Amino acid sequence: MPNIPLIELEALSIKALQRAGASEGNAASTVNALLYADKQGTASHGVSRIPQYAGHMGAGRIDGRAQAKLLRQHAAVSIIDAADGLAFPACDLAIHQAMIAARAYGIGLASVTNSYHAGAAIYHLEAVAKANMVGLAFSNSPAAIAAWGGKRPLFGTNPLAAIFPRQHAHPLAIDLAMSEVARGKLMVAAKEGKAIPLGWAMDEAGEPTTDPAKGLKGSMAPTGGVKGSMLALTIELLVTALCGAHLGFEADSFFDVQGNKPRIGQLFIVIDPAAMGGMDVFHERSETLIAAMLADGGVRLPGVRRYANAAKAEKDGINVPEALLKQIRDLAA
Amino acid sequence: MPNIPLIELEALSIKALQRAGASEGNAASTVNALLYADKQGTASHGVSRIPQYAGHMGAGRIDGRAQAKLLRQHAAVSIIDAADGLAFPACDLAIHQAMIAARAYGIGLASVTNSYHAGAAIYHLEAVAKANMVGLAFSNSPAAIAAWGGKRPLFGTNPLAAIFPRQHAHPLAIDLAMSEVARGKLMVAAKEGKAIPLGWAMDEAGEPTTDPAKGLKGSMAPTGGVKGSMLALTIELLVTALCGAHLGFEADSFFDVQGNKPRIGQLFIVIDPAAMGGMDVFHERSETLIAAMLADGGVRLPGVRRYANAAKAEKDGINVPEALLKQIRDLAA
Repeated sequence: MPNIPLIELEALSIKALQRAGASEGNAASTVNALLYADKQGTASHGVSRIPQYAGHMGAGRIDGRAQAKLLRQHAAVSIIDAADGLAFPACDLAIHQAMIAARAYGIGLASVTNSYHAGAAIYHLEAVAKANMVGLAFSNSPAAIAAWGGKRPLFGTNPLAAIFPRQHAHPLAIDLAMSEVARGKLMVAAKEGKAIPLGWAMDEAGEPTTDPAKGLKGSMAPTGGVKGSMLALTIELLVTALCGAHLGFEADSFFDVQGNKPRIGQLFIVIDPAAMGGMDVFHERSETLIAAMLADGGVRLPGVRRYANAAKAEKDGINVPEALLKQIRDLAA
Repeated sequence: MPNIPLIELEALSIKALQRAGASEGNAASTVNALLYADKQGTASHGVSRIPQYAGHMGAGRIDGRAQAKLLRQHAAVSIIDAADGLAFPACDLAIHQAMIAARAYGIGLASVTNSYHAGAAIYHLEAVAKANMVGLAFSNSPAAIAAWGGKRPLFGTNPLAAIFPRQHAHPLAIDLAMSEVARGKLMVAAKEGKAIPLGWAMDEAGEPTTDPAKGLKGSMAPTGGVKGSMLALTIELLVTALCGAHLGFEADSFFDVQGNKPRIGQLFIVIDPAAMGGMDVFHERSETLIAAMLADGGVRLPGVRRYANAAKAEKDGINVPEALLKQIRDLAA
């Protein structure tokens, strides 16, 4: 199948979300994030989500016309209310707030409540790196990981992203979830009738399983075992207890059309190196570490492949599977 | 062997550090932290470190009389200079700074440079939880973990700790390192001539090994593979690039008496829930999650066992191995 030019995919995607109930601004903010992921080669967080988002708008789980707003601000911290809408406009506002605060106070924090699927966590931090600041992003998601020793999924896969700006290169861009693998991999295996490797998921009894269907009814293995589960717990509390968002186990699955308003949370921290040791120290330390990493053959910097994908996509467009493109075209029609 | 009463062990330990070159204040701050770890059952970060700290003072790697000082402050962020001294007095000051900032601005950050082994990361956050705030602690350490795809150890085991206060119970206290296991476990196995399980360490060629001696010359396996290595990188940059501290691979091993001044870094972030959604929301969200965790049979809250150990130790004292007690007595004599 041929690549679709970015500008065409963008217009089509915005139209699809608008027809499904999103305001123009909310659709534009969302498509910007989805295309970023597609360009970087993270198709699972790209326009492949449009049918899902459209379905949730149709089912009333999210309100495409919601207006994200500043709910509370105190000096360097703030809470944004996503108002049961698409997550991206609210996260845009949160990042803006956290960056302004970091410039003024050296560090800023903004949390988003009553939120929804926020796509690739690293996306939100691009603006932070462009402003020469360090960023951390956290989100929860519908429950997938059990507390250590338990069987019932309680925590989301809870991604963590971190960005570190560089002077003459793309930032170091780290983005990882606390599950060993994404839940989507189980869904693919289940659809294809294939077994999954041990270590990906547990069944409802908490036992390791190679059956993807049993894994989907059970829980996802946390990365690194107990440590991944403890990190998922840490992120779960950071993104809910400070702003009042729903816990992962209170939000119905994103993979079902019907369900409750997810009302999950995100949290962003921005730090200004200029307010600390200064940009010269920051870059000298970072580049010294990066040089040592690259001197060790076989090491690839986090983000490098994704930025290379993005540069290629800017020129060549994105290869969207025929069936998905048809879905988006149908939604936009 | 009989338990030694806490008050006796405390006096002896302070004296040992003073005789080895520490000022009274620095010795007291250090022993407070070491006894906390011993009481909690984390003997590896307790008074067992006294001979090591004493050795490093003797060899001039750290200065026991150093005065930790505020190097720079800008609104909510600050840098503390540990001045090549013991880490604890500097971390005490950093936590104080970060807490004051969090009260004023909603969030506070303090980083420590020119620092040293900071013991159990969770220790530093106890004061944060007592003040009803949320805390995060990070440190690097002499290189142990390779960049993903590489062979040479570049990042420390880089602990991360998080504390969440509760109203009528001990805080949730999470503390974990980014290596699959502690380096000390390899040293014990090497001494006993035993093999180690695959997955603990790699040899100098980057290949998984069951030989602890080869593992000690190679690198420690990051927890969860690539994700643990990426988290170790994130922490390495957070604790060095913002404050100018040494990278893990620039600091000689703590397990050798001779070597350079380690000059590693720590970083603490404190968040005031009262400045965000408020304490009622914070406790309601936390307790809802905790109740769900405890309803899932087999789950133990992070920190519970350690706090139970501490309560027992307050009454019964601590069981210090004979040989170690003799070392401390000899140092104090």
